[in-house]
Amino acid sequence: MIYFDQAASTFPKPKSVIEAITHTLTNYSANPGRGNHKYARQTAAVIDEARKKVANFFGMKEVEKVIFYANATMALNQAIKGFPFQQGDHVVATSYEHNAVRRPLEYMKKENGITITYVSPNESGLISEKEIKKAINHRTKCIVVTHGSNVTGAITPLKKISELAKRNNLVLIVDASQTAGVLPIDVNEMKIDFLAFTGHKGLLGPQGTGGLLINSDISLTPLIHGGTGNFAELDDQPSILPKRYESGTLNSAGIAGLSAGIRYVDEKGLVNIFEHEWNLTEYCLKKLSNIKDIEIYGPPIEEIRLAVIPFTLNGVDSQEIAIILDQHYNIAVRAGKQCAPLTHEAIGTASSGVVRVSFGISNTIEEIDTFIEAIIEIRDGLLT
Amino acid sequence: MIYFDQAASTFPKPKSVIEAITHTLTNYSANPGRGNHKYARQTAAVIDEARKKVANFFGMKEVEKVIFYANATMALNQAIKGFPFQQGDHVVATSYEHNAVRRPLEYMKKENGITITYVSPNESGLISEKEIKKAINHRTKCIVVTHGSNVTGAITPLKKISELAKRNNLVLIVDASQTAGVLPIDVNEMKIDFLAFTGHKGLLGPQGTGGLLINSDISLTPLIHGGTGNFAELDDQPSILPKRYESGTLNSAGIAGLSAGIRYVDEKGLVNIFEHEWNLTEYCLKKLSNIKDIEIYGPPIEEIRLAVIPFTLNGVDSQEIAIILDQHYNIAVRAGKQCAPLTHEAIGTASSGVVRVSFGISNTIEEIDTFIEAIIEIRDGLLT
Repeated sequence: MIYFDQAASTFPKPKSVIEAITHTLTNYSANPGRGNHKYARQTAAVIDEARKKVANFFGMKEVEKVIFYANATMALNQAIKGFPFQQGDHVVATSYEHNAVRRPLEYMKKENGITITYVSPNESGLISEKEIKKAINHRTKCIVVTHGSNVTGAITPLKKISELAKRNNLVLIVDASQTAGVLPIDVNEMKIDFLAFTGHKGLLGPQGTGGLLINSDISLTPLIHGGTGNFAELDDQPSILPKRYESGTLNSAGIAGLSAGIRYVDEKGLVNIFEHEWNLTEYCLKKLSNIKDIEIYGPPIEEIRLAVIPFTLNGVDSQEIAIILDQHYNIAVRAGKQCAPLTHEAIGTASSGVVRVSFGISNTIEEIDTFIEAIIEIRDGLLT
Repeated sequence: MIYFDQAASTFPKPKSVIEAITHTLTNYSANPGRGNHKYARQTAAVIDEARKKVANFFGMKEVEKVIFYANATMALNQAIKGFPFQQGDHVVATSYEHNAVRRPLEYMKKENGITITYVSPNESGLISEKEIKKAINHRTKCIVVTHGSNVTGAITPLKKISELAKRNNLVLIVDASQTAGVLPIDVNEMKIDFLAFTGHKGLLGPQGTGGLLINSDISLTPLIHGGTGNFAELDDQPSILPKRYESGTLNSAGIAGLSAGIRYVDEKGLVNIFEHEWNLTEYCLKKLSNIKDIEIYGPPIEEIRLAVIPFTLNGVDSQEIAIILDQHYNIAVRAGKQCAPLTHEAIGTASSGVVRVSFGISNTIEEIDTFIEAIIEIRDGLLT
C-alpha cells in the first residue's frame, strides 16, 4: 500500500513508538494519579517525561501548563468553549479552520452570543494578516487560527498574526494539528496563548493523544470535571495545573508513545523532515500540474506549503478517484471535504470535494511516480 | 511486585490485549473517519467490532448508541453536563460517588441552578433504594449512581433503584467504572438510561478507553464539537449517533485493545471472575479482621462486595502504610481518599483516609497471605 493519507494520521509509526507503548503496557501501566507504589510512580514518570518533552518541543517554559487530551479536538474545545467570552464578544477565525474549531465557535455563537468573522484566503490561497487586521473590531477578544490548512496545505503567517494579536491585545489560539512535528513552533517566541496539538500526525505518536499548551494566565472553565488525585475534598476543580484541566485517567501507554514520537522527530530534525516533505510535495505538484484535466487547489506551486495537495479531475467525483486508487493501484488517499467545509467554499469545491494526497517522512519520490502514472491512466480511462 | 491496586487500573493486561494494540498500530492504524482506502476501512472495522462487543456486553441493542471516550470521567461529564437540566431541577446521587460524578454535578448546581441530594449509606455501609426514594421530590429529574464504591466495594442495588427510577419517571445515569467486567450489567433489562464505563479496569483494556451507552432518546448537548466525517457542512453536530457525540480522532489501537479485553472477559466468564475476586476478598477480610488495631470499612464481612477493602491501622497515617508496603514488601496498594471525599465523610475517614487494597483476576491467595504477614509486621513495628 502506498499511503498518501498522512494528513489524516501518519503511518507507519516509528518502531520506537510502538515499543514504548508495548513496554509501558507490559511492565507498569498503573494509574499514574498517585505515587503510592512503584508502578504508579513509573507510570507517572512516563507522563512527566512526556510533558517535559512536549513543553520543550514547543518552547514552553512552564511544564505544568501542558495539558494532555485525547486529541486536538478536545484541546480546541477546552480552549474555545472554556474561554471567558462575554455576550457580544467577537472572534476572528479563517476559512481554513477545521470543524474542530468552527463548530465550537458556532456553539459559542449560539449559546453565548459571540460573533465570528471567518477571513478568507487571498487570491494565492493564503491567509493574510492584513485581512485579519481588517476583521478586528472593538469587540474582538481573540484570533483563532489554524497553523496550516488540512485541505490545501497553505501555511498561516503565524508570526505576523501573533504580532497583530499582541498589538491589539487579543488572545491567540492556534490549531497546530497539521504542523506540529513539521514546522517549528515556539509558543514563547511566537507569543501564542493557547496551542492545540495532536499526537498522531506529525509527532508520530499514536491516536488517542494530543493536548493544549496554556501559555497564558487566563483561567478557562474546565471542559472536564472529575478526580484530580489531590484536593479531593474540593467540590470544584483545583486551580493548579495541569490538574485543573486534566481529570480522568490519562492514556499512559499512548503518552509514552507520543514521547517516543517526539524523540524521533527531534533526532530526525524538523528542518530535515520539512525538507523531505516539501521535496515530495514540489515534485508531485509539478508532475500533477502537467496532467491535462487536473486542477490543483491551494497556494501557487512556487509557494512553500505543507505536504498536502488537493486536486480534482475534470468533472469526476473525488470519491470515485479515491476508490479506484485504492482498489486498482493500492494507493491510499482521502476524498471529500476533510471536515473543513469553509475551505471548500473558499476554493470553490464545496460541491465536488477534492482528492487529497498528503505525504510524510516515510514516503518516496518513487511512490509519487507510481501515483502520477495511476492518475494518468485513470484520466485516460475515464475522460477519453 | 504484588499488585493490589486493581481498582485504580488492572494489571497485568492479558497478552491478547497488548497484541491487539500492537497489531493495529503496526499494520493499519489509519484514521477511521472515512472509508476511502483499505487502512481506513480496516481501522474503522476495528472500531465497529469494538462497538458491537461493548453493545453486546452490556445488553445494548442499538450499537450506534455506544459512544467511545477517553475514560469514564469524560463519559460522565457528557451525561451530566450535557443533560437538559432546567433551573431548579433536582438530582439524587449518593455519598459513594467519585469526583467524576460529584464535580460535574456541583458544576451544574453552580452554573445551571440544579439541586443535589447525596444519599448516605446505611449502617451496613450499603446504599438503600428506600433512602433514595425518600430523597426524591417533585423536581427530581434523575438519579446518578455508582454501581459500586471505589472505596468500600459496596455494591449498589441497581435493579431496585432502576425500578424506583422508572416508577417515578426519572432518568437513571450509572457509573460502572468499578463494576464493568466484574458484575453483569444489562442496560435494557436493568433499564439504565446512561451507562458510563471505563476500559482499563474490569474490562482489562488499556487506559485511554471508555465510553457512554445512551439507552435513551434524550438529546444531550455534546461535550465535544468537531469533525464528524460526513455532514461536514453543518455548523452544529449532526443528530445521528455515534457521530453527534464522538468528534475527534478515536484512539483506534486502544479501542482494539478494549475489544480484546472484552473478549477475554467473555471467555473467562463474569461469574468466574467475580467468584475468584470474591474468594480473595472474603479471605482477606477474614484475615484482616483478626488483626488487632486494624479497622475495616464498608459492608459487613458477610455481605458480598467488590474486591476492594479499605482499612486503617489505629492512628497510623494511611500514606505511611502504603509507602512501607511498597518499599519494604513490594506490595502496591493505594492510600488516601481515592477521589471520593463524600465516601470518606460517610465512613468517618475524612481526615485519615484509608489504605485500599483491591484485587483482580491475576491475584492469588498466596499474595494475600504475604500481605497479611506484612501488615502484622508493620503493626508490630509501629504500634508496639
